[in-house]
Amino acid sequence: MVTRLSNYFVRTLREDPADAEVASHRLLVRAGYIRRQAPGIFAWLPLGLRVKARIEKIVREEMDAAGAFEVHFPALMPREPYEVSGRWEEYGENLFRLADRKGADMLLAPTHEEAFTLLVKDLYSSYKDLPLTIYQIQDKYRDEARPRAGLLRGREFTMKDAYSFDASDEGLDASYERQRDAYERIFTRLGLDYVIVKADAGAMGGSKSEEFLHPTVVGEDTFVRTAGGYAANVEAYETPRAEPLPVDGQPAALVFDSPNTPTIATLVDLLNAEHPRDDGREWNASDTLKNVVLALKHLDGTRELVVVAVPGDRDVDMKRVEVAFAPSDVEAATDEDFAAHPALVRGYIGPWSAEGAVLGEASTSRIRYFADPRIVEGTAWVTGANASEQHVLGLVAGRDFTADAVIEAANIEAGDPAPDGSGPVQIDRGTEIGHVFQLGRKYAEALGLQVLDENGKLVTVTMGSYGIGITRALALIAELNNDEKGLCWPAEIAPFDVHIVATGKDAAVFDAAAGIAAELEDAALDVLYDDRPKVSPGVKFGDAELIGVPAIVIAGRGVADGLVELWDRRSGERTQVPIAEVASRIAARR
Amino acid sequence: MVTRLSNYFVRTLREDPADAEVASHRLLVRAGYIRRQAPGIFAWLPLGLRVKARIEKIVREEMDAAGAFEVHFPALMPREPYEVSGRWEEYGENLFRLADRKGADMLLAPTHEEAFTLLVKDLYSSYKDLPLTIYQIQDKYRDEARPRAGLLRGREFTMKDAYSFDASDEGLDASYERQRDAYERIFTRLGLDYVIVKADAGAMGGSKSEEFLHPTVVGEDTFVRTAGGYAANVEAYETPRAEPLPVDGQPAALVFDSPNTPTIATLVDLLNAEHPRDDGREWNASDTLKNVVLALKHLDGTRELVVVAVPGDRDVDMKRVEVAFAPSDVEAATDEDFAAHPALVRGYIGPWSAEGAVLGEASTSRIRYFADPRIVEGTAWVTGANASEQHVLGLVAGRDFTADAVIEAANIEAGDPAPDGSGPVQIDRGTEIGHVFQLGRKYAEALGLQVLDENGKLVTVTMGSYGIGITRALALIAELNNDEKGLCWPAEIAPFDVHIVATGKDAAVFDAAAGIAAELEDAALDVLYDDRPKVSPGVKFGDAELIGVPAIVIAGRGVADGLVELWDRRSGERTQVPIAEVASRIAARR
Repeated sequence: MVTRLSNYFVRTLREDPADAEVASHRLLVRAGYIRRQAPGIFAWLPLGLRVKARIEKIVREEMDAAGAFEVHFPALMPREPYEVSGRWEEYGENLFRLADRKGADMLLAPTHEEAFTLLVKDLYSSYKDLPLTIYQIQDKYRDEARPRAGLLRGREFTMKDAYSFDASDEGLDASYERQRDAYERIFTRLGLDYVIVKADAGAMGGSKSEEFLHPTVVGEDTFVRTAGGYAANVEAYETPRAEPLPVDGQPAALVFDSPNTPTIATLVDLLNAEHPRDDGREWNASDTLKNVVLALKHLDGTRELVVVAVPGDRDVDMKRVEVAFAPSDVEAATDEDFAAHPALVRGYIGPWSAEGAVLGEASTSRIRYFADPRIVEGTAWVTGANASEQHVLGLVAGRDFTADAVIEAANIEAGDPAPDGSGPVQIDRGTEIGHVFQLGRKYAEALGLQVLDENGKLVTVTMGSYGIGITRALALIAELNNDEKGLCWPAEIAPFDVHIVATGKDAAVFDAAAGIAAELEDAALDVLYDDRPKVSPGVKFGDAELIGVPAIVIAGRGVADGLVELWDRRSGERTQVPIAEVASRIAARR
Repeated sequence: MVTRLSNYFVRTLREDPADAEVASHRLLVRAGYIRRQAPGIFAWLPLGLRVKARIEKIVREEMDAAGAFEVHFPALMPREPYEVSGRWEEYGENLFRLADRKGADMLLAPTHEEAFTLLVKDLYSSYKDLPLTIYQIQDKYRDEARPRAGLLRGREFTMKDAYSFDASDEGLDASYERQRDAYERIFTRLGLDYVIVKADAGAMGGSKSEEFLHPTVVGEDTFVRTAGGYAANVEAYETPRAEPLPVDGQPAALVFDSPNTPTIATLVDLLNAEHPRDDGREWNASDTLKNVVLALKHLDGTRELVVVAVPGDRDVDMKRVEVAFAPSDVEAATDEDFAAHPALVRGYIGPWSAEGAVLGEASTSRIRYFADPRIVEGTAWVTGANASEQHVLGLVAGRDFTADAVIEAANIEAGDPAPDGSGPVQIDRGTEIGHVFQLGRKYAEALGLQVLDENGKLVTVTMGSYGIGITRALALIAELNNDEKGLCWPAEIAPFDVHIVATGKDAAVFDAAAGIAAELEDAALDVLYDDRPKVSPGVKFGDAELIGVPAIVIAGRGVADGLVELWDRRSGERTQVPIAEVASRIAARR
């Protein structure tokens, strides 16, 4: 089909939008692909819709090839199934909730696990019906606290979500692998590099979970990987557990005065000055234990203060402790929190036990105490004595204090060992482009999805959930394929196959350009033809560079000699080509 | 493509869904096309999604051919533009409203006039940019008080909405005609009969407005038409205005006692018995004036009682007075209303003036009085005297009483004259399948959409709005194309082109069926192949009839002789055909 720019609904803008933080947002708005409607909510203009349709086509082809069937659920869903699964509460403020005219609670679905589960429960009853994978390409809603970076983190976004149903764990493994393979093919076709990392299943429940991250320094997610093939996002990294040390024979703990030690560094200086070790080794931050007070916001609305311990040379990683405490939210303790708990002596916090503060003044406050895996039994620490201006040294884990639970709390550092023994990790940033989950039986149990097995016995179905952010993928492709002049699409994703520019005022030039457009149309190519009569060549070239169709044909004075220019948007290379050869040259590029 | 039923995601049901009121709902659920999620909200299964995609393809082709460009707006929109246009209030309870986590008011868009207006305002500045028509195919939301009839009146539905933008009235006329023509082509291709009726623009504002109604006795809309070509929905019918009669020389009004006249009929009997006319003509209901008390619910929340007059042989048509009083809502006055206004004497209500009740006891209540156009100046009426057990005769319009305004209030009856003089109207029912509006400058004025004209002067743009209910059209097509066995799709809309059924257990039969499927696939047909190994022919035939693909191929014992049966779903005709001829026979049917 030939689309003539003279009456097409596209207007390129000279100015960057004021709110654009990233290149994809800036260029997609400037080149007339999208327009902002509200924070994190965009309208799609014809050019944008074409690119989106091409991405969706690739995803559909690979889903169909993987044996998945397409369905479509409404965005507006009733509360009940999300209540049963727990997600009505767990999603917190990220969920758009509303009531209909009769007061019935509804929501804009962030994903549709519950609905798919109920659908299969409605229609299927036997193991012979399985395996089944069904998917949809659908507009989703998430009330992000900070929508940002244009399409990269929006509040409405298009997602492909697929769900698999199997009667056995082996079946789930196979369904999971089939989707995972399809994802690899999809991202390869989209030209998006990816790293598959171990992920935490988070609010979705379930067991095995992997993310497809596109590695990019501007990515929101941090992940670790080794040359040996280990990869995980920071939430999923598991600290290798060291063997316990013997407790017996260690010297008794010693409380000492420690005024003016507001930081770990000042505490270490004091130790080295006033409490040198027998063996002559210097004290280091890693010998100290940092106890951090956090506030948990539980689903029932209550607030609980807890203390989390990490080695003094590390920090508490909020993303990692959020996973440990999910579905409760976690935040730093406030001045009000400390005022309400005077037993927590700021700057001198030490371990806590079921009876109250370990050391320090007697306190019957019950504050739960959590320790990073590095606080191994038998290790001795310098830490706060839960009393003003006092620390303690030689406090031995498992002898002098014991945590209520061990949680992954400390930040990961480059060089930390991978849990699979594949060596030291490096730390990278990336953007999530896909996510594959083994949900297991969580939703099927909550909603009662069972089928009869070979022996006529009811078994609970096991499920997988698989998502790709279509609009995020589009934004990332734009992010990767642009230069200072504008967008620069890969051929399979571009809104058009060819952009023809007719320059000057000579009718013969426009006739030749229209002829080439018709010929390319006959070759089943989508053609954008810039036939605007009174626009200067400079403006036309600028628009072509901004819009970013990979192959550009320039018809100008050379038409008199039977020649046009073939302009490669990416390389910038321009080649004189006989008009008769344009179609075959373009075809050869594809 | 060949889809094998043995692993396809479709389950036909033997039982009708309990809540199905109409055939389309019942059959689309039973045949596995849709599933209910909440009142008026459905999920689309693979079969349904295929039919929907085929309808959308036809709509897109005709929109593109009409020079319209596709865009896509989010369903979730901010309040502000709908506030400026007035629709935030006017839509009342039909609008799904919600607040985001920051408390910003948002809505699920019922249509997108405001957003399209702002988009064009953002991007366009000159008359040279116009005309422009842009459209979207999008899921819309309306919180219907009584969602019913499955997809025919849902709360979430897919709609094609288009908007035209012109600098002049002539331009709008041309854009409107182009969309109107496209609608005629679309409904013809969909096989949906339609009548184009004059419509009231209602809450959308604007001037010219027509509806495409599919005539069906189960339709929700009533319309009138004449053999002479007039057609209008009841809200838009305009009563031909009669000439005023001379007031002078008519006898004075006479109040008379009228106990026990609870109905117009008893009043007429009393008149004929006790007040015979001088000319000997019998009194009829049409000589009486019926005054009906209605309550208006204004947008500002206030409630106002008004009196509406119609001839005694007619009723007040609530749909027609709702148009007259829009955007206020209208309902019957309640016992509480009468109790609060003792000057309104139930059963004896007469006309009202600015000073209070005409006749009756002195009353300073200001009650607005509205009259149907049939209450022409100079006509004399028998009506209530605003006093208990008293009526009045010879009360002359324009002499003894005058309405605050004339409104279309009375019901229309078969035989009433058409306003265009094309003869008496008949009354029919239909379902709205499309709506074309000349919005005019309402939205452009409210939102400030102006362009420079030829003379460099700013002019306000004039707009049109054009809608087709995609999912409603699908349901209507199902409603029209079914029999007691199931659905029976027209070829262009069917989910598949051919449904192949292999019967028995003979591997040769299944091989032959698979061969035919492959051959039809090569001919670019979409094939559904029932290859289920252990399902009886009866069940397979029943499913084929229920699903309703128009061409069915049955492979059975005849395969040994090189024969299969071609089964026409609509006519039920079965023909023996050599296997080698199946493809050409099917192709010939299309």
